[in-house]
Amino acid sequence: MIETLRVAVIGAGRMGIDHIERLSRRISGARVSVVVDVDQARAEAAVAGLPDAVALTDADEALARGDVDAVLIATPGFLHEDTVLKALEKDLPILCEKPLTPDAESALRVVRAEEKLGRQRIQVGFMRRFDAEYAQLGGVIREEKLGELLMLHCAHRNPDTPAGFTNEMLINDSVVHEFDVIRFLAGEEITSVQVRLGKPTRNAPEGQHDPQHVLIETASGVLADVEIYVNAQFGYEVATQAVFEQGTVTIGGDSGPYMRTAGTWGGRVTPGFEERFGAAYDVEVQAWADAARRGTIGGPSAWDGYATAACCEAGVQAQKTGEKVTVNLVERPALYGQAREAELV
Amino acid sequence: MIETLRVAVIGAGRMGIDHIERLSRRISGARVSVVVDVDQARAEAAVAGLPDAVALTDADEALARGDVDAVLIATPGFLHEDTVLKALEKDLPILCEKPLTPDAESALRVVRAEEKLGRQRIQVGFMRRFDAEYAQLGGVIREEKLGELLMLHCAHRNPDTPAGFTNEMLINDSVVHEFDVIRFLAGEEITSVQVRLGKPTRNAPEGQHDPQHVLIETASGVLADVEIYVNAQFGYEVATQAVFEQGTVTIGGDSGPYMRTAGTWGGRVTPGFEERFGAAYDVEVQAWADAARRGTIGGPSAWDGYATAACCEAGVQAQKTGEKVTVNLVERPALYGQAREAELV
Amino acid sequence: MIETLRVAVIGAGRMGIDHIERLSRRISGARVSVVVDVDQARAEAAVAGLPDAVALTDADEALARGDVDAVLIATPGFLHEDTVLKALEKDLPILCEKPLTPDAESALRVVRAEEKLGRQRIQVGFMRRFDAEYAQLGGVIREEKLGELLMLHCAHRNPDTPAGFTNEMLINDSVVHEFDVIRFLAGEEITSVQVRLGKPTRNAPEGQHDPQHVLIETASGVLADVEIYVNAQFGYEVATQAVFEQGTVTIGGDSGPYMRTAGTWGGRVTPGFEERFGAAYDVEVQAWADAARRGTIGGPSAWDGYATAACCEAGVQAQKTGEKVTVNLVERPALYGQAREAELV
Amino acid sequence: MIETLRVAVIGAGRMGIDHIERLSRRISGARVSVVVDVDQARAEAAVAGLPDAVALTDADEALARGDVDAVLIATPGFLHEDTVLKALEKDLPILCEKPLTPDAESALRVVRAEEKLGRQRIQVGFMRRFDAEYAQLGGVIREEKLGELLMLHCAHRNPDTPAGFTNEMLINDSVVHEFDVIRFLAGEEITSVQVRLGKPTRNAPEGQHDPQHVLIETASGVLADVEIYVNAQFGYEVATQAVFEQGTVTIGGDSGPYMRTAGTWGGRVTPGFEERFGAAYDVEVQAWADAARRGTIGGPSAWDGYATAACCEAGVQAQKTGEKVTVNLVERPALYGQAREAELV
Ligand SMILES: [Mg+2]
Ligand SMILES: [Mg+2]
Ligand SMILES: [Mg+2]
Ligand SMILES: [Mg+2]
Repeated sequence: MIETLRVAVIGAGRMGIDHIERLSRRISGARVSVVVDVDQARAEAAVAGLPDAVALTDADEALARGDVDAVLIATPGFLHEDTVLKALEKDLPILCEKPLTPDAESALRVVRAEEKLGRQRIQVGFMRRFDAEYAQLGGVIREEKLGELLMLHCAHRNPDTPAGFTNEMLINDSVVHEFDVIRFLAGEEITSVQVRLGKPTRNAPEGQHDPQHVLIETASGVLADVEIYVNAQFGYEVATQAVFEQGTVTIGGDSGPYMRTAGTWGGRVTPGFEERFGAAYDVEVQAWADAARRGTIGGPSAWDGYATAACCEAGVQAQKTGEKVTVNLVERPALYGQAREAELV
Repeated sequence: MIETLRVAVIGAGRMGIDHIERLSRRISGARVSVVVDVDQARAEAAVAGLPDAVALTDADEALARGDVDAVLIATPGFLHEDTVLKALEKDLPILCEKPLTPDAESALRVVRAEEKLGRQRIQVGFMRRFDAEYAQLGGVIREEKLGELLMLHCAHRNPDTPAGFTNEMLINDSVVHEFDVIRFLAGEEITSVQVRLGKPTRNAPEGQHDPQHVLIETASGVLADVEIYVNAQFGYEVATQAVFEQGTVTIGGDSGPYMRTAGTWGGRVTPGFEERFGAAYDVEVQAWADAARRGTIGGPSAWDGYATAACCEAGVQAQKTGEKVTVNLVERPALYGQAREAELV
Repeated sequence: MIETLRVAVIGAGRMGIDHIERLSRRISGARVSVVVDVDQARAEAAVAGLPDAVALTDADEALARGDVDAVLIATPGFLHEDTVLKALEKDLPILCEKPLTPDAESALRVVRAEEKLGRQRIQVGFMRRFDAEYAQLGGVIREEKLGELLMLHCAHRNPDTPAGFTNEMLINDSVVHEFDVIRFLAGEEITSVQVRLGKPTRNAPEGQHDPQHVLIETASGVLADVEIYVNAQFGYEVATQAVFEQGTVTIGGDSGPYMRTAGTWGGRVTPGFEERFGAAYDVEVQAWADAARRGTIGGPSAWDGYATAACCEAGVQAQKTGEKVTVNLVERPALYGQAREAELV
Repeated sequence: MIETLRVAVIGAGRMGIDHIERLSRRISGARVSVVVDVDQARAEAAVAGLPDAVALTDADEALARGDVDAVLIATPGFLHEDTVLKALEKDLPILCEKPLTPDAESALRVVRAEEKLGRQRIQVGFMRRFDAEYAQLGGVIREEKLGELLMLHCAHRNPDTPAGFTNEMLINDSVVHEFDVIRFLAGEEITSVQVRLGKPTRNAPEGQHDPQHVLIETASGVLADVEIYVNAQFGYEVATQAVFEQGTVTIGGDSGPYMRTAGTWGGRVTPGFEERFGAAYDVEVQAWADAARRGTIGGPSAWDGYATAACCEAGVQAQKTGEKVTVNLVERPALYGQAREAELV
């Protein structure tokens, strides 16, 4: 087993920098040996203060180095396929930020390449599975503590969106997380997606219809619905209510200090995803590093990347038509096991 | 103004008895003078202990008496039209338990009869409008404290259903309340209904598909959805989350003593609608009696009874087809004023 | 049994007016026949709109009338003894706002007068016993659902105090309610009181030390403590946490709509005692009226008035000395039964 | 700066093993090089699976090794002084589990030794300061968001106690944490302690009086009270309510999934201190390791260990007398700075 995993981080943007900090200052058994960014200055800034880490502008060069045991990919999604395939060729453990690739066709190419390699090397960055509350809800479902799961009511709210956040990005960047956790919780694939567009907020940028109501069905008939609302102003919130035969379970509520002052009681809303899911990212990357040191993966697979890409394609089509759109997947390769088992972290 | 309103209660079943108790022992300015039930013994049991109240089996006889200032109708819905029309002829104040009548056509006949009479005499028993939390949420909406209302997520859960509770009754007996409060909160009419049937609970009686997910749109595009789940086992729950341009408001949560014991924290789920809405019924009947003593109504009108009946018809059709069904209403008579104002209690 | 109890309300200040409204417009089986106030104009304003009610300035005159079945006393405490004793002489049912009288010696005279009369006619206005949450907590205690009661942590917070609210009034007007409910919940008498004075808020009026921490013991050793804080600014709060052998129960938390906006989650703090205990007052006066119509009382007795007066005397002494002060009571007269039973509403 | 801190862990009991796991598998920049335990087998079991770590039975031998950069002491409290003084002689960074030593006199000897060394090397394991909620409450206090702090109501509840847990241990092992956080939050020293013994639970072992109510005052008059209840059965709970001039803040409430089933709503009570404070231990040890690599400490100092030892002595005396016992401290050495600053993590 590798004692300290030497990681090449590809992409030194917001998520890349966050992962570099995590690998260097918080988790155990891994360190950053290389940071790659097309912007040389950004790569160099990222390695400042890291002993023995080098800054490069070329991913190929990084993959060829002797001090790289594993690759963490945090570039924009359209660049993922190329790096993933090259890292697969070198048989390196990969943690690829979501999405695996931007569409189902390219994601399937990655799946086929990994299938050909014959062992799982790719873990996709669906970090919610590592959140303590999702994990506990998953336990309630699998142990059938409240009977069968029947419905999932989900809300995904952001305070606002950066410039250029399009209608399609509501599905591809935000609902994609819901697609993954609905699959994870239900333990089976999503079979259809429908989208309702109603009265929009006046706080959305032009060209973006916000909020939207996404209706989802799984193979056994679990009905999920997602309110995606990316200019909700009040703060960040990701919440799920699961409805069972014998009760309900709600996650994503607020915690922290509880205050009374000036005629109100309550607390602070989580301001963003770092505060909400920061601990989940730590657990995710620790799990990946621990697994990579043993030669395996420790989370969502390339199949999960492919299946969610197919859901996103259906979702974007459903946005445009208002109709229920079927999600069609190829047969699940044996490499990825059975659904229920595969979904477990 | 009438000092003490003498009320004929028609129907001495569960709701009738509850209203008799309310009029006799809790609220002010009204008393029960007559109880009518086709079952003589039941009528007599209901007046036992009430000074100066008589038991009858014939509603016509009750309406003809000199000691009847007003009528409270608590018979099964299919019997309502006849009694309402007769009480209208006598120009008596009427509190009619929901539904006004079982279908839109008959409800429209009642509306037309009242229109012809020229003044509002009919109040329909949609008691949720008198619940403190719905009233407060209504205030947030009307005062636009959080900007425009965009979505309403509703859940209506019962522990179980009596024998013979059909699929249609999920809409006609349960979702009908949601139709009314969605109209009340949005301050406008419902324009379409769609129903999703997914994985059912194994605890529903044969022939009943439970739970269901009802999708609703209003005139301005507010998207509402209702989880109707009538064999939810764990207890009773009616909850609504309103989504605004600047935040969300949730009502229907639990209150009461909060306990820690045996590894768990929490409290008791409200066991049924009497516990959840008992105070709202008191406020409703007090408001009706106060208004009736002054010659007016103090709550939802016959128009509300008609409009919700039309929603129910669309809902039952949507259950069968899975399609979005349009709700068509006649033009709102001048007698009932404008929607926004009319919806206010 | 009296069908409609005709009540003379003595005192038309804030509480008197509130009770007149309650008797006239909300509860059943009672009406106001006379309002007495030394201020003629105030008495007349109070009866405006009440059919058949007269305004007087003399309580004796009221007690002598034929249309007075019962007396509700809402004058300042130092005037209570005289009216109570006169109403007792006429054998009238009495609801006396707290305190029964301002000190233990005078309260004991009232107890002795009632003992001599030989039946209970006096109910004291400790309305918290009629609050749903206190009642539920009382049930947990009596049924020993969590084993023995061991401790009670109480907080009594007001937003501010009227001019002239002295240090002694913290005990006599505010903590007096806690003395009663601690006795009610523990089902036994209080045996000692100690008061801690620490760092005061800068928002208290001169001469008033606020907040204070009151330490209480009951006969069997239950330890209670009360934070009395009458310039807490943020709103009104009365909360109790009961500690048992097998768990804890907390009451007095917030309920109502739950909002997220502008970076915070939460709701509105109850602004005052009317909002917090309004329903309890309704239930209290309904219980009193129902009992009075049958010739009994329906709540806390004169003994409770006497015992709490003795606690207040000890409390005021403890404020001054910082020492633990013993509460000494005369033997409980047979008329008032045993403690545990007597405390129950 | 040291790149990877090589730590000798002295004591391989419950806490020692927990810290070994933490240093080895979760945090960054530190690893275990030596484990010392008088029980050779226990030491060896602790290093199984740790690369390059050795098991010893003698602390002196560990301190003399070249691969030891720092010492983490997790032996029973009465053994601390000797190891701490020896590690000080070697000028090693020390993380000493609480208590620093079992009494104020020996703790003062440690303070004097560190004072003589001339720089802070000792950090004491009061991990609550690293808990996110305590830290946030500390922020509210220091920034005076709600005005001055006036009172602190604290509860410290354990499900049960191990055999041999004496009355004194309630103070020395449990309330000691409250002494530290009260000092930390108030930013000043505790000046007196009083203890109330009331009705005990029947679930305490013989000789132990449980629960107890501890009354504490700080230099400026902040009144704190602590319910210490170590056989509370229902689970683990550490909660604090801070009362300010303009409001209150409560920490230590429950979070996690929220369930409705079988007539109740709520969630799981935290079962023990590992679940409640596990993350705080991680942050504490990471902060210590980061500081130690730079040659400083990153948390509570030897002075905090001494001051809490003095509070414990007063507390045990107060248990026996029922009287208020004064806490007397020597003058704070310049090495430890001013109180307010020193208390900050
Ligand atoms: Mg690392
Ligand atoms: Mg009545
Ligand atoms: Mg009345
Ligand atoms: Mg480490």
